Amino acid sequence: MKYGVIGTGAIGGYYGAKLAHAGQEVHFLLHHDYVYVCSHGLQVNSCEGSFHLTDVNAYQQTEDMPPCDVVLVALKSVNNDKLQSLLPPLLHPQTLVVLIQNGIGVEEDVQRMFPNVQLAAGLAFICSAKTEPGRVNHQCYGSINLANYSCKDEALMQQVVDDFRQADIETGLVEYHEARWKKAVWNMPFNGMTVALHTQTDLLLKNKATRRLIREQMMEVVGAAQHLGVKNVDSAFVDKMIETTDSMTPYSPSMRLDYDFHRPMELYYIYTRPLQIAREAGFPMPKLEMLEAELRFLEEQNNR
Amino acid sequence: MKYGVIGTGAIGGYYGAKLAHAGQEVHFLLHHDYVYVCSHGLQVNSCEGSFHLTDVNAYQQTEDMPPCDVVLVALKSVNNDKLQSLLPPLLHPQTLVVLIQNGIGVEEDVQRMFPNVQLAAGLAFICSAKTEPGRVNHQCYGSINLANYSCKDEALMQQVVDDFRQADIETGLVEYHEARWKKAVWNMPFNGMTVALHTQTDLLLKNKATRRLIREQMMEVVGAAQHLGVKNVDSAFVDKMIETTDSMTPYSPSMRLDYDFHRPMELYYIYTRPLQIAREAGFPMPKLEMLEAELRFLEEQNNR
Repeated sequence: MKYGVIGTGAIGGYYGAKLAHAGQEVHFLLHHDYVYVCSHGLQVNSCEGSFHLTDVNAYQQTEDMPPCDVVLVALKSVNNDKLQSLLPPLLHPQTLVVLIQNGIGVEEDVQRMFPNVQLAAGLAFICSAKTEPGRVNHQCYGSINLANYSCKDEALMQQVVDDFRQADIETGLVEYHEARWKKAVWNMPFNGMTVALHTQTDLLLKNKATRRLIREQMMEVVGAAQHLGVKNVDSAFVDKMIETTDSMTPYSPSMRLDYDFHRPMELYYIYTRPLQIAREAGFPMPKLEMLEAELRFLEEQNNR
Repeated sequence: MKYGVIGTGAIGGYYGAKLAHAGQEVHFLLHHDYVYVCSHGLQVNSCEGSFHLTDVNAYQQTEDMPPCDVVLVALKSVNNDKLQSLLPPLLHPQTLVVLIQNGIGVEEDVQRMFPNVQLAAGLAFICSAKTEPGRVNHQCYGSINLANYSCKDEALMQQVVDDFRQADIETGLVEYHEARWKKAVWNMPFNGMTVALHTQTDLLLKNKATRRLIREQMMEVVGAAQHLGVKNVDSAFVDKMIETTDSMTPYSPSMRLDYDFHRPMELYYIYTRPLQIAREAGFPMPKLEMLEAELRFLEEQNNR
């Protein structure tokens, strides 16, 4: 099995390095870090045990990479238009592309670009950051679930799960729509609200008014998912998400980091697209629509 | 006619000084400014012509003030519980109390404190600020409409209008519910949104997403007012408010100033009360409910 990683950052760098450390053949596309990683390798500082990869298969462009059996795409979704040119050199007829990205609709759009490619979603539950060249800081958690979108080869999906497990990554196979919407239940309130109120998860839950608001926003996502026929997304799951977040250390989601570092926020797939899907299906989410408008405003102010 | 002013700040100081400057007998309750105003008088710097009041009837407590025919209450509504003790010394059986305050429900609550007092609402459309002791800076506008709440003496209401006009204050008599809800159409979106996004009116209207959001929030207020049977509050009025705000100089509403100076915001009468009235009548305003929750969060953070 050959693995390719597009987007060797906090997420792609972590999972790719774990696989390589466990003996898999992994090919990494690098950008700013290319020269550094060629000479210094990749360092993973992890709560579960740090390690260093000395010999990294590093590339500056996908044209130089071999066709791979599995490609992990861990780009920010704001850059997904680049997949049109990035992906083809890595594809052979049976390649499985796993989109480890946030939001709703990414698989649909990538499938439209590549109608015959086999796609899966990778739903990562991880706190990690890339703060320096060639160095991933993995703070906590680390599981990643795989959801089949258009892969006809079930043995291949299972092979990826086995490879991840062999690399000490907690993983499993989950239902696609359920998994994407469950992730949205957490992502839609917390990513935006930590930006809008310039705060972290813990304070949002400590204040009575915003704790209630977060719950109402989660219930908007649950309502939309149920309206769309998605199973197992319900108020019990909302309770569990709030409980889980209560027990987490104070956390700044990726959108808050993007905002703080004046990088574009993933507004389209985390907000615009699911809001549009829900509204077209007759289930508007007014509080999350308002949050999107606030984020559009802040994005404009932030990049002036 | 004897006028009393409770709350000699940007609003009460302006209207009281205009009346006194025009020859009316006006008695001012002062707080921090008392000693300064006793020796230096009251200065009004105004876009319509500045003037100075040398001999000011200034008081430190209402017990020393005479009973008045008209009392202008221009306290922040967060201090309305103090009216219980402040108001009685100024009242005679025919006194008219004019509440120049923001929000929905202030007259109802003050009437409950003083069941027999005659009440009116004063709806000021003015940009002014008190930045130093004894000095009111009046930047623009300045009209104030009067709305009868429980005054049986129509001649007295008309007399107040005449006195205001004689003092070069633009004024008129308006219907109570219509006037309060029309004011809420502007106040509920702009007061809170300038705090939540730390911005001013012009930028909220320049950004496409927040311009639309402001309009949606205004339409929530219109919907609630119509649901409550209030007349003449409609989408044409919303268009007019947005047009008026487009033509204003960039403006920080009072709530933004309160927030910036770490003073309590008027959340109860501008948000909580009208939201509660509308919800109980079966017309929730989800986007303004979300705004209230954000403001409750910011208030808590701001006063830690």
